[in-house]
Amino acid sequence: MSDPVTTPLVDLNADLGEGFGRWELTDDEALLSVVTSANVACGFHAGDPSTMRRVCELAAERGVVVGAQVSYRDLAGFGRRAMDVPPRELADEIAYQIGALEVFARAAGTRVGYVKPHGALYNRCVHDEAQSAAVLEGVRTAGTPLPVLGLPGSQLHEAARRVGLPVVGEAFADRAYTPEGTLVSRREPGAVVHDPDEVVTRALGMATEGTVTAVDGSTVKIEARSLCLHGDTPGAADLARRVRDELTAAGVRIGSFA
Amino acid sequence: MSDPVTTPLVDLNADLGEGFGRWELTDDEALLSVVTSANVACGFHAGDPSTMRRVCELAAERGVVVGAQVSYRDLAGFGRRAMDVPPRELADEIAYQIGALEVFARAAGTRVGYVKPHGALYNRCVHDEAQSAAVLEGVRTAGTPLPVLGLPGSQLHEAARRVGLPVVGEAFADRAYTPEGTLVSRREPGAVVHDPDEVVTRALGMATEGTVTAVDGSTVKIEARSLCLHGDTPGAADLARRVRDELTAAGVRIGSFA
Amino acid sequence: MSDPVTTPLVDLNADLGEGFGRWELTDDEALLSVVTSANVACGFHAGDPSTMRRVCELAAERGVVVGAQVSYRDLAGFGRRAMDVPPRELADEIAYQIGALEVFARAAGTRVGYVKPHGALYNRCVHDEAQSAAVLEGVRTAGTPLPVLGLPGSQLHEAARRVGLPVVGEAFADRAYTPEGTLVSRREPGAVVHDPDEVVTRALGMATEGTVTAVDGSTVKIEARSLCLHGDTPGAADLARRVRDELTAAGVRIGSFA
Amino acid sequence: MSDPVTTPLVDLNADLGEGFGRWELTDDEALLSVVTSANVACGFHAGDPSTMRRVCELAAERGVVVGAQVSYRDLAGFGRRAMDVPPRELADEIAYQIGALEVFARAAGTRVGYVKPHGALYNRCVHDEAQSAAVLEGVRTAGTPLPVLGLPGSQLHEAARRVGLPVVGEAFADRAYTPEGTLVSRREPGAVVHDPDEVVTRALGMATEGTVTAVDGSTVKIEARSLCLHGDTPGAADLARRVRDELTAAGVRIGSFA
Repeated sequence: MSDPVTTPLVDLNADLGEGFGRWELTDDEALLSVVTSANVACGFHAGDPSTMRRVCELAAERGVVVGAQVSYRDLAGFGRRAMDVPPRELADEIAYQIGALEVFARAAGTRVGYVKPHGALYNRCVHDEAQSAAVLEGVRTAGTPLPVLGLPGSQLHEAARRVGLPVVGEAFADRAYTPEGTLVSRREPGAVVHDPDEVVTRALGMATEGTVTAVDGSTVKIEARSLCLHGDTPGAADLARRVRDELTAAGVRIGSFA
Repeated sequence: MSDPVTTPLVDLNADLGEGFGRWELTDDEALLSVVTSANVACGFHAGDPSTMRRVCELAAERGVVVGAQVSYRDLAGFGRRAMDVPPRELADEIAYQIGALEVFARAAGTRVGYVKPHGALYNRCVHDEAQSAAVLEGVRTAGTPLPVLGLPGSQLHEAARRVGLPVVGEAFADRAYTPEGTLVSRREPGAVVHDPDEVVTRALGMATEGTVTAVDGSTVKIEARSLCLHGDTPGAADLARRVRDELTAAGVRIGSFA
Repeated sequence: MSDPVTTPLVDLNADLGEGFGRWELTDDEALLSVVTSANVACGFHAGDPSTMRRVCELAAERGVVVGAQVSYRDLAGFGRRAMDVPPRELADEIAYQIGALEVFARAAGTRVGYVKPHGALYNRCVHDEAQSAAVLEGVRTAGTPLPVLGLPGSQLHEAARRVGLPVVGEAFADRAYTPEGTLVSRREPGAVVHDPDEVVTRALGMATEGTVTAVDGSTVKIEARSLCLHGDTPGAADLARRVRDELTAAGVRIGSFA
Repeated sequence: MSDPVTTPLVDLNADLGEGFGRWELTDDEALLSVVTSANVACGFHAGDPSTMRRVCELAAERGVVVGAQVSYRDLAGFGRRAMDVPPRELADEIAYQIGALEVFARAAGTRVGYVKPHGALYNRCVHDEAQSAAVLEGVRTAGTPLPVLGLPGSQLHEAARRVGLPVVGEAFADRAYTPEGTLVSRREPGAVVHDPDEVVTRALGMATEGTVTAVDGSTVKIEARSLCLHGDTPGAADLARRVRDELTAAGVRIGSFA
C-alpha cells in the first residue's frame, strides 16, 4: 500500500490557448483532460479574448488551475524574440495581461492561480535580474501574490523569494539537461528529446527519483514540483496522456501546486 | 442660499489616456483637475499599459472616477472605423479591456466605476441592437454591474435597461443637435461648435435648464446627468476648466454619478 | 482530337501564405503544385514577410502567378470583419500591401500579376462602390494596371471597367449559388458544398458548360475565367488536386489568366 | 570667393512621418522645407500608409530625397526596444518595409534613395554583425543597391562595404561625443545637447572642420557627409531651420548625398 506521506505529488502544466483569431495551435480540449495547470496565453504572444474565455471555462469545468502565461508584446514573433523592454513598462504589460485573464477566469468560476513567463521572456528571466523584478512588479500591480512557475535557480525565482512570492520549480521531460542541471540551448543539437519512450522514462525519473540523465551521461538532481508538457507539436496530446498514465501507474500522484 | 435638493448636479467626463507608447494625445494631467469621470482608453484604440496605470493613479489621487472606455480593436484607425465584429467576439473583447483596466484601477486604490464605448463603437451602439447587447454581455462577463455612460435613447441604453444595468445619459456642449435631440453627424457642416463662448452657454443651458438650441433654432430637451468635454483639441483643457468654473458660478454642483 | 480554339481554358486560384509567424494555415507547398494563381496574403489579415517571400519563391519556381490578396488591417479577425475605412485611407492601405508583396515577387524573379481583395473586403466590394473605387485607387497608386480578380457583376468589377483595369471573373465550386447567380450567404444553411464528388461535378460544369446548379435546382449561367479553390480546410489540397486532374481529363486546359 | 571644389557639401536628414493614424509626432511640413533627406517611417515603429504617401508627395515636391527608415516591428515601443530577431526574419521585415515605401515614393514621382535603421535597430547595428548583415540582406531582397545612412565605423557600415553597398556617415549636432568619437549613451547625463546655440556651433564645426568637442574637452575628428536633425521635440523645426541658415551663411553647401 502506498504511503500518502511519501508518495510523490507532481503537477503537470502545459501552454494552452496559443491560437489567435483564425489560427489554432494547441489542442486545448485534449490537453485539458491531462494537465493540472493550464498556462493560458494572454493576448501578447497569442491568445485572443474568446480563446481565453473558452480555455478558462474548460479548465474550470475540469478542475484545472488557470495560470497567466505572460509574454512580451510580440504576436509576429510568438513572444520568442527577446526584447529590451524598460522595467516599468514591462511590469505594466504583465499586469495588463494578468488583469485581462482574471476576468475570464472569474467568469468561469475560478481565479488566476499562478503566473509563468512565456518564451523569450521565460529564457531572459533565467539570468536577467531587472526583467525578473519587472515581471514580479507586474504581479504586485495585479494585486494577488501569485505563485511563480519557473526554472529552479532562475533569477525569476531568486527575485520572487526576495519579494515573498511563492515559487514553483518545473522540469522538462523532453529537454536535454547539462551536467549542471540547466537546459541545453535549443540551438544545440539534441536539445529536444523526440523519442516518446525516452520522454516517458525521463518524466518518471524526474517525478520519482528527482533526477535526470544529463547529456554527458551523468545523473543530475532536479527539484521540480511541476512537469511541463508541450502542447504544440503533432502527437503532443497523446504523449502527454501517456506520461500522465505511466506516472500514475508508478504510484505518482498528479495534482496542482495551487 | 441654494437648496441642495433642487440644485442641479452634473458630472463632467472626458476621454483620457488616449496616447499610445511614444505618442501623446490628451492632456491627462490638466483634464484630471477638471472632470469628475475619466474615460480611460484600454489599449484597443489607444492606451498602453503604462499610460493606463498613470491615469488611474492620478484619477484616484484627485477623486476622479475611472471608467473603461472600450473600443473596437483598431489602433491604426483610433477606433473610429465601424467594424462588423461578431457579438460573442465583441463581448469578449470588451471584457478583456475592462479586466485590463481593473488591474490598474485597483492598484491605484480605486475601481472601474462605469463603461463607455469609444468612437465608432459608440456611434454604432446608438442604433445597433446586436452590438449593444454584445457590449453589455462583455460587462456581464467582466463581473460587475457597471453603469453604462452613453447617449440618451440609444440602443445601448435600451439594452442596458433590459438587462438591469444602470444607465447614465450624457450631452455634448460642443456638438450641434437636431430638433429631435440627436447629434448632427460629424459629416455635416456645423456639427461641431468651435466658439468657446457658445460651448459655455450650451453647457449652462444643458446643466441648468436641461435644454439646448437645435440647428433649426428650436429648443430641445436634453436629459443628461453628465456632460462630455473633449480633450484632444488645442485649448481643450482650458475650455474644460472654464466650463466647470462657469457651471459652478451658476450654482451647478459638479459631481460624479458613480 | 480537341480543338485548341474551343477547348475551355481555366485558371485555378487559391488563398496562400495565410499563416502568421508561428501560425500556419494553408498548405502552401501542396497547393502550389495545383493552382495557376496564388493569392498571397500581404500582412494585413495574415502573411508575415518571411512567409510572403517563401510563397513567392515557390510560386516562381513552379510558374504560378503571384497575386496580391489585399485586406482590411485586421489580424485578430483574419480580415473577416467588414470595416468602414475611409476611402483614401483604404486606398493607401491597399497600395502599401501591394508594394510589400512586389518586393518578394521581384526577388523571386516574378511580378505581382493581379489583385484580389480578401474576406470581408471581398464581400463588401460586391456591393460597395466607394470601397471598390478605393481598392482600385490603391492599385493605381501602386503603379501597375493589375487585373482585378473578383465576382462577376460585382461593384469591384464595374469600377475596374470604368477606370480601365482588366477584370477576371471567378466562381466557387464549393459554394452554393442562388438562382440569380450570386453566392448564398455563409450564414445560410447549405452555403458551402462539403461533398468532394459534388465539388468536382460543379467545377466540371463551371469549366466546360459555364453553368452551375442553383439551390432551387435551376441551372445558372456562370462566366468565370478562374475557379477559386479553398486551401484552409482539412483535405483541401487533395480535393484541389482532384479537381485539377478531373478538369484535365475532361479536356479543360488549365492556365493562368495573366 | 569660395572655391566650389573645396566648399564643404553637407546633407541634412531628419526622421519624418513618425505619426500613426490619429497620432502625430514630427512636424513633417516644416522639416521638409529644411532637410535634404527624409527618413520616412515605414509602418513598423510608426508611419501609417496615408502618412507615408503624404510625406513622399511633399518630399518629391520639394526635391527632398526619400529614405526608408526601417525598424523592428514594435509600434508599442516606437522601435526603441532592442529585439533578438532571427536574421532571415529581420531581413524579410526590412524588405517588406522598403517595398511598401517604394510604392508611395514612385507614386509621388521619386524613388527610395537610401535606407537608415531606426531607434534600437540603429543602435544594435553599431555593434551587431548578424543584425547588420540582416538589414543589408533585406536591402538586397528589395532589389536596389541603396546607400546605407549610419554611424561611421558601425558594423552596419563595415558590413555594407563588404557587400558593396555605398555608405554615408552621419553626425549628430545635438548629441555628446566621447573622446573616441562615439556617441555618449542616452542613459548618461549630458548625452543630449539642449542649448540651441551650442547645437548650431557644433553643426558648424562638424560641417566646416570635420570636428566636434568631446565630453572631456578634446577635439574629435568626425567624418560625416550628413547631419541628423531631430524632429520630434518642441522647437525642432525652428532649430533645424536655424542650423541650415547658419551653415549656408558659413559657406557650407547643403545637398543630398543621393
